[in-house]
Amino acid sequence: MRASRFFISTLKEAPSDAEIVSHQLMMRAGMIKRLGSGIYTYMPTGLRVIRKVEGIIREEMNRAGAIELLMPLVQPAELWQETGRWDKMGPELMRVKDRHGREFAIQPTSEEVITDVVRSELKSYRQLPVNFYHIQTKFRDERRPRFGLMRGREFTMKDAYSFDRDVAGMQQSYQTMFDAYSKIFTRFGLKFRAVAADNGAIGGTGSHEFHVIASTGEDALVYCPDSDFAANMEAAEALSIGERGAANQPLAKTSTPGKTKCEAVAELLNVPLQQHVKSIALTVEHEGKKTYFLLLLRADHELNEIKVSKVEGLKDFRFSTEAEIQEVYGTVPGYLGPINTRAPVVVVADRTVANMADFICGANEADYHYTGANWGRDVAEPLVADLRNVVEGDASPDGKGVLAIERGIEVGHVFQLGTAYSEAMGATFLDENGKPAPLQMGCYGIGVTRILGAAIEQNFDDKGIVWPDSIAPFELVLCPMGMDRSEMVKEQVEKLYADLQAAGIDVIVDDRGLRPGAMFADWELIGVPHRVVIGERGLKEGNLEYQGRRDDAATSVPVDEMVAFIKGKLGK
Amino acid sequence: MRASRFFISTLKEAPSDAEIVSHQLMMRAGMIKRLGSGIYTYMPTGLRVIRKVEGIIREEMNRAGAIELLMPLVQPAELWQETGRWDKMGPELMRVKDRHGREFAIQPTSEEVITDVVRSELKSYRQLPVNFYHIQTKFRDERRPRFGLMRGREFTMKDAYSFDRDVAGMQQSYQTMFDAYSKIFTRFGLKFRAVAADNGAIGGTGSHEFHVIASTGEDALVYCPDSDFAANMEAAEALSIGERGAANQPLAKTSTPGKTKCEAVAELLNVPLQQHVKSIALTVEHEGKKTYFLLLLRADHELNEIKVSKVEGLKDFRFSTEAEIQEVYGTVPGYLGPINTRAPVVVVADRTVANMADFICGANEADYHYTGANWGRDVAEPLVADLRNVVEGDASPDGKGVLAIERGIEVGHVFQLGTAYSEAMGATFLDENGKPAPLQMGCYGIGVTRILGAAIEQNFDDKGIVWPDSIAPFELVLCPMGMDRSEMVKEQVEKLYADLQAAGIDVIVDDRGLRPGAMFADWELIGVPHRVVIGERGLKEGNLEYQGRRDDAATSVPVDEMVAFIKGKLGK
Repeated sequence: MRASRFFISTLKEAPSDAEIVSHQLMMRAGMIKRLGSGIYTYMPTGLRVIRKVEGIIREEMNRAGAIELLMPLVQPAELWQETGRWDKMGPELMRVKDRHGREFAIQPTSEEVITDVVRSELKSYRQLPVNFYHIQTKFRDERRPRFGLMRGREFTMKDAYSFDRDVAGMQQSYQTMFDAYSKIFTRFGLKFRAVAADNGAIGGTGSHEFHVIASTGEDALVYCPDSDFAANMEAAEALSIGERGAANQPLAKTSTPGKTKCEAVAELLNVPLQQHVKSIALTVEHEGKKTYFLLLLRADHELNEIKVSKVEGLKDFRFSTEAEIQEVYGTVPGYLGPINTRAPVVVVADRTVANMADFICGANEADYHYTGANWGRDVAEPLVADLRNVVEGDASPDGKGVLAIERGIEVGHVFQLGTAYSEAMGATFLDENGKPAPLQMGCYGIGVTRILGAAIEQNFDDKGIVWPDSIAPFELVLCPMGMDRSEMVKEQVEKLYADLQAAGIDVIVDDRGLRPGAMFADWELIGVPHRVVIGERGLKEGNLEYQGRRDDAATSVPVDEMVAFIKGKLGK
Repeated sequence: MRASRFFISTLKEAPSDAEIVSHQLMMRAGMIKRLGSGIYTYMPTGLRVIRKVEGIIREEMNRAGAIELLMPLVQPAELWQETGRWDKMGPELMRVKDRHGREFAIQPTSEEVITDVVRSELKSYRQLPVNFYHIQTKFRDERRPRFGLMRGREFTMKDAYSFDRDVAGMQQSYQTMFDAYSKIFTRFGLKFRAVAADNGAIGGTGSHEFHVIASTGEDALVYCPDSDFAANMEAAEALSIGERGAANQPLAKTSTPGKTKCEAVAELLNVPLQQHVKSIALTVEHEGKKTYFLLLLRADHELNEIKVSKVEGLKDFRFSTEAEIQEVYGTVPGYLGPINTRAPVVVVADRTVANMADFICGANEADYHYTGANWGRDVAEPLVADLRNVVEGDASPDGKGVLAIERGIEVGHVFQLGTAYSEAMGATFLDENGKPAPLQMGCYGIGVTRILGAAIEQNFDDKGIVWPDSIAPFELVLCPMGMDRSEMVKEQVEKLYADLQAAGIDVIVDDRGLRPGAMFADWELIGVPHRVVIGERGLKEGNLEYQGRRDDAATSVPVDEMVAFIKGKLGK
């Protein structure tokens, strides 16, 4: 490619609505252009990256035996009603009526359509297993689109759907996809981590998320450096800390005026925060009847609401209102505790709290806390559950070390769906005995356009983006010095350009005639990973200047060796 | 590709709603699957054809200097309001509201968005010319979707938009695209014709349509076998036929009871139809005032409404109502004529009618016609215009022979848009003198998915589709006979498969273990253009059987020569 025939448009400043670095740099590098909230035109440089991402995904999906097709964007409401998602999805599902008033969804995902395809196409166990995928535009009407391509409304996704005859087959298809994803993200040249995840609303029996590691990531990834354990925060089991000691202190009511936070009580009483228990009041309403729960956490721990929702009876919990707290506990928020509640309350203690002795908690009386509280003696033994986020240093659930936490950006997700969709939509096949059975499904997504944002969050510096070789818009840029003045430079640029192309290198030559500073700044901002400068001075000594995007200084390379040198750098 | 790892699903019968052969064959070959009215899933075999079509388009667009980007599907209403198309487009434009009630169009085309992109990106004449394109899903809410991919609602289109500093530049960009389109359709291996077209509602100064020639095509293409002249029916100028002769007959009112059609009058009076004039009453309403026009055509000619709308004063014509006809002509439809109308009427005669003498026309009195009517003597000389469709044998407008007509399917359209969009949206650049001027635009479309339908309408037989090599889902199919029984066959298939792949041939090996008849029928239906049969009998003599999709019989080819033979067939 010649820059003069390409479209390059860089900005010194990012627009003010670009809050995160990937969004800022993509706007500045001219890779995307905002059309509306969460809707972007992919400009030529950005589209090249998308195409490379798609190309790697397509190759590995094909290699894993998945078959590409293309399902429509505009999908009849009837199919979404069959699975109940038409109602369940809420306003994120963009709905549209055609000229005859018939309703359609603009697809955010395609479980319904693929299940509709296979219920007429897959008739026999002989046709299984099969895995269909497509790379398609999606729309999700986010309440608050932001962060550029990270949380857009219109985006590109690869979604795949596997169909098997039984659970073992489905798990094998799942593993094949898990392995393909690992290859895909490795080929992207990104540091990533696969973590066990909660299946959430989509249902099914097992799932993993693939995250690009980045300190700016929205998600906390829990892993054990000494073992294979890795999970997201919802799926990472928190073990209890310590053993329950003996009750040494008497229960005592202590004045803590105005101290509604554990931190303030700890400071007042000069007792470490780890000795305090935080009480959280929940209400569950079922058929007009209210049940009250009091959850107990060690004061320095954080509640995990997904874990809470899995405790029996707490699926549809909400936080209690101030009026409910007054009624049940006879006090105001900030002084709640498990001892002497006014109305019946189910006390659920986090595993760590259940092991505490001589702890401090609210007294259910304004401006008072108890010290020296003990299970069994002062209050009945509680129900025990895992209610909290793990923290660095917690024991790994696999018993093989302690946990570490890092930040990640979710870019892929694989699910064992089971028969949720196939049963709802009547997608069955005939087994060896000629009996109909529901298809066992898996589904597998990669956020194609999101990869761009995630790759940048992981790879940038103060000059701009630093693309990995495999997904860079160009692998190499040739920067001629004074091409218009020097025949020697011009000839060498043309020869090198031709030789590099012949060697299969994705090269752009910057023939725009810019000053070196402006030219270099553009390519550093755009993030092309390799650069060769062709100047008269070097040429007279038979040399060209190579500089990698992360290198501090240039390297002189003999003209004749440059193609081989670049091939070596690219591992080609 | 191995058929066992691909998805092949053929049908003996096409669904009853498939009215035309391309729709029937695509359904039977399992290339598309209906999701809703005019909405299809592109199944794996169909998607392969689409990707090849897209690949050829992309290569030639890039070669012609166009730059690929990708504009969103969901586009803010505000942009469409800037050009007035939000109101003009009618129900074909699919509209949707987001969760905040903001309105969007699901794009049928992207003039507004690209103009919005360039009005902030193109600032100087130095950046011109530039041509952006994308290959994107489109939606058009057709009143009556039908014919499979030929008139679908969701479809894929390549649309390109050129920007130039002046009309000469725009015309040069247009010519570059015209040439690129010619290369693209040539590479598709389709018989096609480019015809001059009317710009229609999109505006601008010149346009051509690219049609795939097919006897089942919806459009009539007019061309001169002896010259370059080619136009669609609207743009093909109809010259006058004959010279006006002397008035030999007296004007006479003749009883023609119940004969409201020219054909019936001609039969009654035993006078050739070519001597009769057909009168068509039109009304134009402007600011509450009605004007009446009477259009005259030779009785064997057909009115062309696009041509009518270009006659001065007739832009917004409609056909007169029966009440208006009674008021203006004092009679009922079927007996109208230019002589003795009751109210003032503007008479517009087609060029051929203006040259007629002693003609027959209605007498503005029920059951009566005039014979021997003559211009100047019986009625004032009329306004003269080109009002009719050309017919085979008409003189070519370029004076170089006579016209022929064939049927075509429109698959591409190139437009000289001028400044209609850039002026409406304030898309200007600064010229050499630093003065702002509106960008001169061209736009260029190819119906990607429609190509599939058109290619089949041109290339099929009673066995199924016959794809041209360049866009076939596979170039070649290997059909082993008894692969499961014969080691010799199995070894040869694997070797040949590997050799063909190494030679860059897009080959599928049918390892499904079907009987030969079923296997051949599948591939003939799907339309793979080349087939090699590997059987033990032939192998013992060192031969394989080659058969082209259009060949009547197979050809024996020595095993060692097969790869070279296939390369020769494919021109590789």
